[in-house]
Amino acid sequence: MSHNSFGHLFRVTTWGESHGPAIGCVVDGCPPLLPLGEADIQPWLDRRRPGQSKFTTQRQEPDAVEILSGVFEGRTTGTPISLLIRNTDQRSRDYGDIAERYRPGHADVAYDLKYGIRDYRGGGRSSARETAMRVAAGAVARIVLGEGVRIRGALTQIGPHRIDRARWDWDVVEGNPFFCPDAAMVPVWEDYLSTVRKAGSSAGAVIEIVAEGVPAGLGAPIYGKLDSDLAMALMSINAVKGVEIGDGFAAAALTGEENADPMRMEDGRLTFGANHAGGVLGGISTGQPVVARFAVKPTSSILTPVASVTRGGENVDVMTKGRHDPCVGIRAVPVGEAMMACVLADHALRHRAQTGKSWP
Amino acid sequence: MSHNSFGHLFRVTTWGESHGPAIGCVVDGCPPLLPLGEADIQPWLDRRRPGQSKFTTQRQEPDAVEILSGVFEGRTTGTPISLLIRNTDQRSRDYGDIAERYRPGHADVAYDLKYGIRDYRGGGRSSARETAMRVAAGAVARIVLGEGVRIRGALTQIGPHRIDRARWDWDVVEGNPFFCPDAAMVPVWEDYLSTVRKAGSSAGAVIEIVAEGVPAGLGAPIYGKLDSDLAMALMSINAVKGVEIGDGFAAAALTGEENADPMRMEDGRLTFGANHAGGVLGGISTGQPVVARFAVKPTSSILTPVASVTRGGENVDVMTKGRHDPCVGIRAVPVGEAMMACVLADHALRHRAQTGKSWP
Amino acid sequence: MSHNSFGHLFRVTTWGESHGPAIGCVVDGCPPLLPLGEADIQPWLDRRRPGQSKFTTQRQEPDAVEILSGVFEGRTTGTPISLLIRNTDQRSRDYGDIAERYRPGHADVAYDLKYGIRDYRGGGRSSARETAMRVAAGAVARIVLGEGVRIRGALTQIGPHRIDRARWDWDVVEGNPFFCPDAAMVPVWEDYLSTVRKAGSSAGAVIEIVAEGVPAGLGAPIYGKLDSDLAMALMSINAVKGVEIGDGFAAAALTGEENADPMRMEDGRLTFGANHAGGVLGGISTGQPVVARFAVKPTSSILTPVASVTRGGENVDVMTKGRHDPCVGIRAVPVGEAMMACVLADHALRHRAQTGKSWP
Amino acid sequence: MSHNSFGHLFRVTTWGESHGPAIGCVVDGCPPLLPLGEADIQPWLDRRRPGQSKFTTQRQEPDAVEILSGVFEGRTTGTPISLLIRNTDQRSRDYGDIAERYRPGHADVAYDLKYGIRDYRGGGRSSARETAMRVAAGAVARIVLGEGVRIRGALTQIGPHRIDRARWDWDVVEGNPFFCPDAAMVPVWEDYLSTVRKAGSSAGAVIEIVAEGVPAGLGAPIYGKLDSDLAMALMSINAVKGVEIGDGFAAAALTGEENADPMRMEDGRLTFGANHAGGVLGGISTGQPVVARFAVKPTSSILTPVASVTRGGENVDVMTKGRHDPCVGIRAVPVGEAMMACVLADHALRHRAQTGKSWP
Repeated sequence: MSHNSFGHLFRVTTWGESHGPAIGCVVDGCPPLLPLGEADIQPWLDRRRPGQSKFTTQRQEPDAVEILSGVFEGRTTGTPISLLIRNTDQRSRDYGDIAERYRPGHADVAYDLKYGIRDYRGGGRSSARETAMRVAAGAVARIVLGEGVRIRGALTQIGPHRIDRARWDWDVVEGNPFFCPDAAMVPVWEDYLSTVRKAGSSAGAVIEIVAEGVPAGLGAPIYGKLDSDLAMALMSINAVKGVEIGDGFAAAALTGEENADPMRMEDGRLTFGANHAGGVLGGISTGQPVVARFAVKPTSSILTPVASVTRGGENVDVMTKGRHDPCVGIRAVPVGEAMMACVLADHALRHRAQTGKSWP
Repeated sequence: MSHNSFGHLFRVTTWGESHGPAIGCVVDGCPPLLPLGEADIQPWLDRRRPGQSKFTTQRQEPDAVEILSGVFEGRTTGTPISLLIRNTDQRSRDYGDIAERYRPGHADVAYDLKYGIRDYRGGGRSSARETAMRVAAGAVARIVLGEGVRIRGALTQIGPHRIDRARWDWDVVEGNPFFCPDAAMVPVWEDYLSTVRKAGSSAGAVIEIVAEGVPAGLGAPIYGKLDSDLAMALMSINAVKGVEIGDGFAAAALTGEENADPMRMEDGRLTFGANHAGGVLGGISTGQPVVARFAVKPTSSILTPVASVTRGGENVDVMTKGRHDPCVGIRAVPVGEAMMACVLADHALRHRAQTGKSWP
Repeated sequence: MSHNSFGHLFRVTTWGESHGPAIGCVVDGCPPLLPLGEADIQPWLDRRRPGQSKFTTQRQEPDAVEILSGVFEGRTTGTPISLLIRNTDQRSRDYGDIAERYRPGHADVAYDLKYGIRDYRGGGRSSARETAMRVAAGAVARIVLGEGVRIRGALTQIGPHRIDRARWDWDVVEGNPFFCPDAAMVPVWEDYLSTVRKAGSSAGAVIEIVAEGVPAGLGAPIYGKLDSDLAMALMSINAVKGVEIGDGFAAAALTGEENADPMRMEDGRLTFGANHAGGVLGGISTGQPVVARFAVKPTSSILTPVASVTRGGENVDVMTKGRHDPCVGIRAVPVGEAMMACVLADHALRHRAQTGKSWP
Repeated sequence: MSHNSFGHLFRVTTWGESHGPAIGCVVDGCPPLLPLGEADIQPWLDRRRPGQSKFTTQRQEPDAVEILSGVFEGRTTGTPISLLIRNTDQRSRDYGDIAERYRPGHADVAYDLKYGIRDYRGGGRSSARETAMRVAAGAVARIVLGEGVRIRGALTQIGPHRIDRARWDWDVVEGNPFFCPDAAMVPVWEDYLSTVRKAGSSAGAVIEIVAEGVPAGLGAPIYGKLDSDLAMALMSINAVKGVEIGDGFAAAALTGEENADPMRMEDGRLTFGANHAGGVLGGISTGQPVVARFAVKPTSSILTPVASVTRGGENVDVMTKGRHDPCVGIRAVPVGEAMMACVLADHALRHRAQTGKSWP
């Protein structure tokens, strides 16, 4: 069962609430003898950390990760790796109002319908804070995969503004606060998000994750397909409403000819003339880059009052004050990368189990 | 592990190849004492069966399902239900050519890269024939869910032609060969697909599945979310390249205000003023209709030659003759419904396990 | 979840009732390219088959296995292997009496308490007939393990009569109807069981399974230990009430000195001066023979009337007529071997996944 | 997969090494709204804690448990419960010698054979310290089961000295340092263990766990049997070499008549005239007390030198100094109880999932 775990052989279990003492995860199944220390994980957490620009929440969390087990003298032992991050920015505040009112569009009403209990302090388990542990686990997964596999993400759309893919430049991505690969789009998003932020509104986004160097053969028919596991993993990220592999929904409008990925042998290697498939055929990687995309809805935390109800059954209007990201999609980039890394690491181990084939 | 199984408490394992003696599935975890016979399953299989119009493959399979276990005197016993369908239309033919050539865009090259073996007889395990067992399992899942939960699907797009949602009429769906809910679109698709078929080409499609009457509380944080399990389940269907919940990718272009689903108490019941979320918040159902959508790529089986390679490493051009659907998305409608049913049944059991809450 | 499945990477799902049309299993996760045909499975089933001596039930089942999937041109494809055995000896008979009366010591009252339904035709799902599929799966597992791993079983006790371990001779095992390794014990058991059989009584037994050539490193801490998985697997066999690894319960009476297994390097290889541990330390194989033992209770199907109750709640006395084994433990030998093979194959794959180490 | 997790719906994942900064566990799937605080867990940990008599190790660990998540305002929320215990007694010492020498009979050689790495500081992951987290998880499981289910354990044998079952008195158990239910045996064990301790030797033991008030219907055929899950759970405890249910191995010597558990209706309730079966038929609980027994080998940490080898392949003799329990079986009693509680809680949830039946 997998309420709070994912992966089969590279298996991640996360726990913790946004306003509890700590959050953490347990990474089980990691191969032994890999070099691992906090310094291998912290940089990825820093990338995701809030408070780095005015376009992300001003909540300050150093997010310093501690390794509590599974590593001995700088190397993994093959036993479970326990990672912990203390929550430091738990402002004491008066929740009086919000304790009884459901925030529209948030998970709190759903949790209460399910469990009959409500942690009103700021998202509880459903807070995006949980995604820090995905990033930490993803850092371990990257080490499992090795340097031959390169996983990068970028934003391709904020609100109605999409990048021009012809201008895609990976070098641009880390040089702006949006993980934007299209230099010309940066000022457009900057203007747009400033307006959104001032209005106390929010914007959706689309993120693309590309994994290069993925060995052929990862993924297992029929219910362990690489792309269905990616879909599960990416859809499990907070606020995600859609997932695509390769051309995704655009493929529905194409003919078979337009959608074809021709194959050729070149210098003894299988090559493809296109990658509409996003690197996956029949649920199995082909050696092409694995390309996934996911849509993040605009956060429901907005200043405009929205009709809602209280736990007691009264109608109220709720507006959400506080330190919120105008576009939660931005910080979803490192999270999406981490989920890609975890899914690939899991399938690399599964593939090795069944076929004996390791990756470089 | 779940190479060929899905679900946790309502667990489905499928097996079989398109050209072997039979295909089958085992449904484990079904509650006892439910009325079940072949007659409860067969109608759903008949809906999916090929050869029913000129727009689906002419391969003739009666697809008669046999229940081999798990039912005693017309009721489920709580033990595994084994379902079997004999393959009857295995034309003996000469595979000479195709045995060595990979069909571009098909899974056969990926399977061979993974396993080092190739079942060249027509898709083998990766054939859409496998989806018949999903439909059979889905029929059992519908009985688990009971009549209070209504699951229906429709096509909303074929190739570039989308329906007008304002004209959506469920009564229209069963009266045309496309599961089309927009009567005005039927002739357009008919013309379009006739052209596609005559050209030996193929077309993609988008399918929407709607589940009404879903009790609130299904789905479990964080890696057992209802929507992430739906994403996995739908993405695992052959040729699917994208999955959406509720507004899906369109939500990325909206502001928080536009995307809001206001809540109100009406006659003591929680109601919503919109359903952008597709019935799921924080991975948990809210009682609204659960809405999922998936994109099916155009099948790669086309008459136009496409560049490919042989197992031996030679460059060749491959055109795919044979009895193929010009739009495999059409027959994906009953499959998508079945996957929705299985995921909901699984989560209904999981919810009951943890909270003690049964559904009506 | 694993109601009717066991193993993680070499995963076996069984289905079927003793008096239904068939029983079967699905073996998922098998490596590709292994030679496999019905002829590799049938001999193991024949060893277990009833009706081979007067000391096993006279029920006649040819138990002819069919491979329905997962094999192409004589080799495994890496996809699920579906195995099926038709039930041929379903005598139509009058169950009138027994339909309402619980057989004391049988599973039928427990199934009814759980599921509220009773398949009264002869054990249903709880019948030892299910173990035929374990033997079939075990035959596949042996091929996965290869010829370097040798798994053999023997009876060491029937009723109060234990073998003399000093006389253990594997060559004797296949030459008598009891899988007895002690030639001097054969006539004793023969006399004893003849008496038991004539009295309509039954006898318990102890079975020992030894696996030689098991590579070091199989088993995973802490809840995937080789010995705890063996305990689960052997305890799941019908009528088993106890499981031991190595010295088992006898170890409780020893001191640390008496129980020590000294280690030495000999010709560059790690060797052990004793094997009290049964080949497992900390849940991980050491390269020594893996030794497990299990106790089978005397079957409850006896001619002596035993106090029981009816479904309606009346007190009755029940005696069990029919074709029953006086000592079900005899036929448990091939079943125990098969469970050992399946557990080892599963752990060989798990070990390879995490460490990259294959076995010879 | 379950390397370091067990249970399906009540799922426990443990992590941590004896000489790392902390050990911990994550309990997932716990029902919501149950009262839970550290004070519900700590007393069970105190029972297991070392240093409480001269017959257990003098290592001093306060073993103070912290709840880091899953509880809000004193009640479970349905989300994962993270439990943590800091390791406080990590004496810095010189491991020089032992770092290279395998301790005979310990897991360290097996871990090294598997993973190629050795945490020489005192058992690492294989240390009995891990069992503290089982006890903590068991405390949560007891709350899930409620007060109607009573789980108690006792020692029935130390070395060659067995209790007289006719003198069994549960009230005696907590009044002596051995969890001994037979007052007359206490001085015998005291003498015996004093001798063993002074000799630097060690003794094995047998522990019996009895669960009363277990509802009928727990356990699921065929590979989710209550007794096979108990066997797995108990065999996974450090140093356990055998597991029995009910009469266990003694049943092998009985006839069917001697082993019969007659049934009668009394005051409208099903009652049994004996409990040879240990409360389980066909893998399903019948409402009788569930009785399990397990054998613990004498610890290999003894002062007598035993032949061993170094990592470098040299032959050496190793004697184990340090603070060790002369009879590790004593502290296994609370651990065995905890495993029983966890398995029952898991099966209570599984039973409710499939059948809708809750327990009182």
